[in-house]
Amino acid sequence: MALRTREQYIEDLSKMNDNLYCNGEKLNRLDPKLEGCINVLAKSYELAADPKNAELFLAKSHLTGETINRFCHIHQSTEDLHKKQDMTRFYCNQIGTCCRRCMGTDAANAVNAVSYEAQKRPGAKTTYYDNFLKWLKNFQDKDLIASCAQTDVKGDRLKRPSEQVDPDQYVHVVEEREDGIVVSGAKLHISEAIISDEIIVMPTRSLEKGEEAYAVSFAIPSDSPGIKQIVHIRDLRKREHFEKGFTPGYSDSYIIFDNTFIPWDRVFLCGETDLGGILALLFSLFHRHSYSGCKPATLDYTIGLASLAAEINGIKKAKHVKKILSDLIMIGELGYAAGYTASDLGKPEVSIGGKSIPFGPGGYIPNVIYANVGRCLSGENVWHEMEMLCDLAGGFPATFPYEKDIVNPETKEYMEKYLKRNQDISVEDQIKFWLQFADFCVSSSGATTSYGAYHGGGSPIMEQIAITSQYNIKARENIARQLAGMSIPEKK
Amino acid sequence: MALRTREQYIEDLSKMNDNLYCNGEKLNRLDPKLEGCINVLAKSYELAADPKNAELFLAKSHLTGETINRFCHIHQSTEDLHKKQDMTRFYCNQIGTCCRRCMGTDAANAVNAVSYEAQKRPGAKTTYYDNFLKWLKNFQDKDLIASCAQTDVKGDRLKRPSEQVDPDQYVHVVEEREDGIVVSGAKLHISEAIISDEIIVMPTRSLEKGEEAYAVSFAIPSDSPGIKQIVHIRDLRKREHFEKGFTPGYSDSYIIFDNTFIPWDRVFLCGETDLGGILALLFSLFHRHSYSGCKPATLDYTIGLASLAAEINGIKKAKHVKKILSDLIMIGELGYAAGYTASDLGKPEVSIGGKSIPFGPGGYIPNVIYANVGRCLSGENVWHEMEMLCDLAGGFPATFPYEKDIVNPETKEYMEKYLKRNQDISVEDQIKFWLQFADFCVSSSGATTSYGAYHGGGSPIMEQIAITSQYNIKARENIARQLAGMSIPEKK
Amino acid sequence: MALRTREQYIEDLSKMNDNLYCNGEKLNRLDPKLEGCINVLAKSYELAADPKNAELFLAKSHLTGETINRFCHIHQSTEDLHKKQDMTRFYCNQIGTCCRRCMGTDAANAVNAVSYEAQKRPGAKTTYYDNFLKWLKNFQDKDLIASCAQTDVKGDRLKRPSEQVDPDQYVHVVEEREDGIVVSGAKLHISEAIISDEIIVMPTRSLEKGEEAYAVSFAIPSDSPGIKQIVHIRDLRKREHFEKGFTPGYSDSYIIFDNTFIPWDRVFLCGETDLGGILALLFSLFHRHSYSGCKPATLDYTIGLASLAAEINGIKKAKHVKKILSDLIMIGELGYAAGYTASDLGKPEVSIGGKSIPFGPGGYIPNVIYANVGRCLSGENVWHEMEMLCDLAGGFPATFPYEKDIVNPETKEYMEKYLKRNQDISVEDQIKFWLQFADFCVSSSGATTSYGAYHGGGSPIMEQIAITSQYNIKARENIARQLAGMSIPEKK
Amino acid sequence: MALRTREQYIEDLSKMNDNLYCNGEKLNRLDPKLEGCINVLAKSYELAADPKNAELFLAKSHLTGETINRFCHIHQSTEDLHKKQDMTRFYCNQIGTCCRRCMGTDAANAVNAVSYEAQKRPGAKTTYYDNFLKWLKNFQDKDLIASCAQTDVKGDRLKRPSEQVDPDQYVHVVEEREDGIVVSGAKLHISEAIISDEIIVMPTRSLEKGEEAYAVSFAIPSDSPGIKQIVHIRDLRKREHFEKGFTPGYSDSYIIFDNTFIPWDRVFLCGETDLGGILALLFSLFHRHSYSGCKPATLDYTIGLASLAAEINGIKKAKHVKKILSDLIMIGELGYAAGYTASDLGKPEVSIGGKSIPFGPGGYIPNVIYANVGRCLSGENVWHEMEMLCDLAGGFPATFPYEKDIVNPETKEYMEKYLKRNQDISVEDQIKFWLQFADFCVSSSGATTSYGAYHGGGSPIMEQIAITSQYNIKARENIARQLAGMSIPEKK
Repeated sequence: MALRTREQYIEDLSKMNDNLYCNGEKLNRLDPKLEGCINVLAKSYELAADPKNAELFLAKSHLTGETINRFCHIHQSTEDLHKKQDMTRFYCNQIGTCCRRCMGTDAANAVNAVSYEAQKRPGAKTTYYDNFLKWLKNFQDKDLIASCAQTDVKGDRLKRPSEQVDPDQYVHVVEEREDGIVVSGAKLHISEAIISDEIIVMPTRSLEKGEEAYAVSFAIPSDSPGIKQIVHIRDLRKREHFEKGFTPGYSDSYIIFDNTFIPWDRVFLCGETDLGGILALLFSLFHRHSYSGCKPATLDYTIGLASLAAEINGIKKAKHVKKILSDLIMIGELGYAAGYTASDLGKPEVSIGGKSIPFGPGGYIPNVIYANVGRCLSGENVWHEMEMLCDLAGGFPATFPYEKDIVNPETKEYMEKYLKRNQDISVEDQIKFWLQFADFCVSSSGATTSYGAYHGGGSPIMEQIAITSQYNIKARENIARQLAGMSIPEKK
Repeated sequence: MALRTREQYIEDLSKMNDNLYCNGEKLNRLDPKLEGCINVLAKSYELAADPKNAELFLAKSHLTGETINRFCHIHQSTEDLHKKQDMTRFYCNQIGTCCRRCMGTDAANAVNAVSYEAQKRPGAKTTYYDNFLKWLKNFQDKDLIASCAQTDVKGDRLKRPSEQVDPDQYVHVVEEREDGIVVSGAKLHISEAIISDEIIVMPTRSLEKGEEAYAVSFAIPSDSPGIKQIVHIRDLRKREHFEKGFTPGYSDSYIIFDNTFIPWDRVFLCGETDLGGILALLFSLFHRHSYSGCKPATLDYTIGLASLAAEINGIKKAKHVKKILSDLIMIGELGYAAGYTASDLGKPEVSIGGKSIPFGPGGYIPNVIYANVGRCLSGENVWHEMEMLCDLAGGFPATFPYEKDIVNPETKEYMEKYLKRNQDISVEDQIKFWLQFADFCVSSSGATTSYGAYHGGGSPIMEQIAITSQYNIKARENIARQLAGMSIPEKK
Repeated sequence: MALRTREQYIEDLSKMNDNLYCNGEKLNRLDPKLEGCINVLAKSYELAADPKNAELFLAKSHLTGETINRFCHIHQSTEDLHKKQDMTRFYCNQIGTCCRRCMGTDAANAVNAVSYEAQKRPGAKTTYYDNFLKWLKNFQDKDLIASCAQTDVKGDRLKRPSEQVDPDQYVHVVEEREDGIVVSGAKLHISEAIISDEIIVMPTRSLEKGEEAYAVSFAIPSDSPGIKQIVHIRDLRKREHFEKGFTPGYSDSYIIFDNTFIPWDRVFLCGETDLGGILALLFSLFHRHSYSGCKPATLDYTIGLASLAAEINGIKKAKHVKKILSDLIMIGELGYAAGYTASDLGKPEVSIGGKSIPFGPGGYIPNVIYANVGRCLSGENVWHEMEMLCDLAGGFPATFPYEKDIVNPETKEYMEKYLKRNQDISVEDQIKFWLQFADFCVSSSGATTSYGAYHGGGSPIMEQIAITSQYNIKARENIARQLAGMSIPEKK
Repeated sequence: MALRTREQYIEDLSKMNDNLYCNGEKLNRLDPKLEGCINVLAKSYELAADPKNAELFLAKSHLTGETINRFCHIHQSTEDLHKKQDMTRFYCNQIGTCCRRCMGTDAANAVNAVSYEAQKRPGAKTTYYDNFLKWLKNFQDKDLIASCAQTDVKGDRLKRPSEQVDPDQYVHVVEEREDGIVVSGAKLHISEAIISDEIIVMPTRSLEKGEEAYAVSFAIPSDSPGIKQIVHIRDLRKREHFEKGFTPGYSDSYIIFDNTFIPWDRVFLCGETDLGGILALLFSLFHRHSYSGCKPATLDYTIGLASLAAEINGIKKAKHVKKILSDLIMIGELGYAAGYTASDLGKPEVSIGGKSIPFGPGGYIPNVIYANVGRCLSGENVWHEMEMLCDLAGGFPATFPYEKDIVNPETKEYMEKYLKRNQDISVEDQIKFWLQFADFCVSSSGATTSYGAYHGGGSPIMEQIAITSQYNIKARENIARQLAGMSIPEKK
């Protein structure tokens, strides 16, 4: 059994090289400002260590037969896909935010399939798949965390990578050496790359002939001196008097590659433009499937906040409250159902031009249409959810007093009197509730989360493109043609 | 093998008693005005007779072991639920409208469970479940069609059945005799009851003590002289020159019970108010699950119309067209995924007060949350779908010329010239397309279908009530309480 | 005083030449099928004849000083624009549908401005504005009705007029003679052109150099032997027992120009491509302003239907009913306010490239931004309004019985019993209400009206283009730049 | 001329009594944390001092004939209402947030009307209107700022004021003395009450017989030792390297009345329950009219941000960008048009039960329907606007680096390289842009503003109630009745 503990994870963080910059200074990985972020990821070790969660959080490695953390697993069946979805929902419900450890899992599953196909290609520059398996074995054995660095700066967005004035707007190979490759560029918005062990790098989009330098995927240790990470942290104001049940944090970084060297045995793709595009899509697909776990969890939490806000405000029986609760439940459970169906119809195949073909060494891939319709629904409702919470809460969370005014003897009595809207609930619970509500809805951190929920895993417009390009629209045209008495075009 | 043919079905219709009134006159069941309606139901016999469809359309009776039409089947497994969903989608795609034979199936499955529980009750007035099994055996053996008469007139909608000035606003027992019961009232909006063999009658809503007379369920032959049916028909204008691929029709009726006698062996419930309410909900649940087949089929057809309209209008590559296609696909496939999940999580249990308890003799019942979120999504999008089609089509379908002007030698040349928008498609196909499009979107029949799609199986507001009353909201409150550091209430 | 009576209008129709084709046959203008359409237009004479309406319906001709029908008037002030809006709302409320006489008014006002500018051009082919004034004087003196033929067939919509395979996809000049011009092509969706006296023809879109032949505008008598009209009629089923308060009808036609001769003194534009585009936009602008009268009227009617449906169904006090009524009022009154503001800010100017410049001989033109935002709001809510009515009505209107079944002695008693939902309103009123509701919402005619309301005067996408191209977005960028501390670009 | 300068205003603040509590400590009014808030209000003095703005910002007092700041004015004409709307839009565009000085203006105009009617009542407890005029004269002479304290704590929201367990949940009179009244309770969410000179207090809702103690209105100096204010401040992180064009702030307070004495000559209402309700509604009405100025300004700013984000991201020509810009323009300009129409139809009258009756001493009151539909549209779109900005921006603003990392020599080069998306705009401008964008959209302050924009002046549900209760729905029912041929009920 290869399972790391929370303590071991933190100890490992303490040993890492210094390559982080934040707010004008170097940042240590055990800096108190990162406590919340570490809490989030460390929770995955705590949960896996609890025998009650074994079914969801542990898996059997297809490489070694060992028991491993499911976040290090390559999905071997539809059941694995179901469990990944349910583990994600459960995890997120413990922390009240997105779990962040999914990125590495999704990236590993995508690289698993693509590096396998790449290695079969005549003229492959290295044994891509063997490299990956070697990396994966270590990853599983040590129960490591990976982040995924996909998003490039992109420069002028209507231009292709090769058309940019500054070629570094997309990460690319600047030199191929005997012992490895040299890359430059930057990846941005990379969640928790600073407290991950490994970073998996991959292309952000489809690529064409002539863009071979951009078709590159590899793994690099998070603390490699070859990179600099410029960090942004979103912490909620620390509670002093009214403690939360769980204190999360959030970091992301710009990862700077400036002639960074990567040895060949860490390279998973190098120059295969078509596979580069497939890798980008496959990671997105696995990650959109992850959303079918985390977004229903966000809705679980949101439903709880909505229902309690209505109760504290004394309006729980009002008709429009039921409508709001029903809308929230629908968003969450339709998203879950889409993921459930995507899991159940999963196969070791990819859909190319509307046809499903075998792909990779046998790892299971969720159904592309259902994974996309689910995530798109989630993305399109982010702000509507915020509106519904705002509707139920009224202005209270926006102007809620400071903790210190609630405990200041000169104002305490008034505060407790006027913060007690509902006579049947203790004022302390009501205060904690609104502080938490404000953290979720009326904070910089909350707004950042909304941006993540809208754009993360692909903005709604990206799912719309995936949906219309993968769906068999011709078959539906033929239904309409048949019913209208029109001619039916021959299949080509 | 107990399978009726299309021809046998029509012959059986010809032998039925006269109890139909339409447009001021008696109506014969083989009247040409009913041709389209009969086409729709008869198609279920044609499809079942085709060996290619055996997997979907045939089932093995749990009563006799015989091969029967799946529409006469009591679901014995989650696989049966999946097949019912897929059969419905396939059937509807052949006819371009709702299939109508689902009502009897859904009613029979609901009565199967409820009559079983009712018979176990001390003081049961008759052997409800035995009566049902006897009725079911004949139903399966003869491959009959049942309609379901649930919707009462309801009078003042804010008053309960027992509070109405006119007690007949809800169908109810006016006398219990030794040989049977006598009922009065009316059921309305009853689709295709006139060309069904049997009508299953059941309550429309939950009932309270004191409303025993309204807790009544029974079966009656459609042509019983004890009832009068006042019929409404929605036929599309018959095509003379540009024939459709399939010609559907639609009828519904007001069914009048005026001191109508029902023998005891056709009575499935009589006075058990709590079970009366459960029966109403269970039929709705099975029927909302049916929508997870028929609505995706409607969307298949709609996507086809949308895509062809864009092609004929030469705008297929426009960005907003892709957005519309993606939205349509999302509505259809989220609805399908909800039904798929409801099927897969189906059990011989019902959810009462948020708890799932065994119910009935073992027939499988779809998951209530997923069946409801799926149907609610469908209902909420009916008019939005119409808007999207209108957007793509432009004004063409609203002012399309009459067939006769297209073939009139004095105008033909102009018509063919100016109806040919796309030079790559034959003008005949373009004409057929827009005539079909107009039938779907700009006709009385189309608008009726929208009303059916919005309110049928329960308006969105009914699903919202079902969702909020069945969902475990307390569990979500506890997630929020836990995260906020609030106290967690003890379970009661 | 130059006012025609209803009777004179109908007598004039009886004298017109035969050039109409309908359903395979020639159609006479006094054919009973056209009774409803004639009712709609004739009402404008009745209303103008009533002294109570003089303020709204009469105006003083700026040509002759005579009292004329406001529908023949060229707006001379913002007060005229206000009155046009209010007259339109009032008129539509008398007939329960769109009034149709606005098209001629809007076209005349647009031609008034453009022909004036065209005549000033060096090389003008005729005295465009003098021609128009001559035509206008006769139009006002005889109190005539004009329709406006703008919409071309358009063929491949992503191609320009001059790029079409068939040049006739847009009406254009095929020959210029000494005595006039010869035109070919077809205009479609032309409302009530068949029972108008005159047809004003104009381009449908902006034009470029090289498209001079398409930059043509002229007037032609509706009964000219030089054109053929192929007619579509949408009549509601005639009432036999439950009479309506007003019986409308609707016709539109394809107008075929096949080498049709137009004498020079009826030509208002011929070859000025830039002015052709402005004419298209100006008619749209006046017509979108008309929508600020007719759409609020439609909402008035819709609000009445919604409120009565709620009352008859006994749900008037339900919260969601108030929400629906409020939404309907908002749509109507925001549309009205937009038109009101467009009237009040009206000037004898047009907005070109964001700048307002004097244009035309002094006729008042509504503000382009407010006219467009109002009409766009109206268009975007058409189907939402239908959904709200459907929600309140339930299934009743979709399956409402035939009049003859309600009066048939064998079924009358049951029908009256079960159609009486509300005990406080006479059953006859309830029957009339639902028949009217069904005409509005569940009929081919109603659906056609929705298509008209969505696309007429320009689909929402057309207003979006008008809005973004006319709005001073740069000024808003500068506000953001100023607040952000960014540099402010110099004005060019 | 009675105009205060920015400097005089700040000097006056420095002299005020200490009655503020913030974050556990006493707060001085010139504390640096309040700099942004003071900036916002002080701007009103700067703008009024600029002769270019005289038309909008100055008015002639109807009391003294003196030139005064328009924010101290009682509207004497529809022109005054128009100017108030335009002044508000202009002011907000200078500061990029809501202007806060409107509350006092709106409160004064409402009290002006209601105190006049109250004084005429037999048994009036004091000369309410004379008191108000005396207060107003001083207010105008000294160019003071008032805030309006309306919102009570409200306790159990489904219970009336007199039914609360704790009577202090609504501010009320606890004693009437010869020299004045004594009040208790708290007002919350009160914007900038801490840096206003005066606070006008009034009821929050309609009142019934028996609730006389709650029907109280008066003015109290903001620094009165009789009250305590518990303050919340939302400041944006101070810029150190990339300065903004204007630095705003926002404060609100809980104002605690604990047996606070108010002398009779500052009392404007005391016990007239019906007028208490009208006062609450009238302030809301004036304040919703203010929204027709400030929300279009917010949209001006939002349109600017949206357009620049699209430009920097290189997607300005994409179709969906035009759709977003058009939607934003529509929201802003429909809101403006509603306010414009409300101004133009303003009268010295109020609408009670659908009838407009003269009210007050002649001050002009905006039309209630148009003021409400405008503000409701604004409220309903708050989150939709945020979604559209999020869509255009992508993830950039959510993870934007700290200023100090941009200037840190170790990271500066990378930051400038990778923050330069658009090669045609200076990187400094791009950095300032995204910092500003993040302040608006991804900050605690921004989210608070959204809550204010949603609930301030009444949540959308409050406008829906106002609209449906004031609109003449009966007249619309009669239109529908007339058209359907139904009977028309007699007027009562």
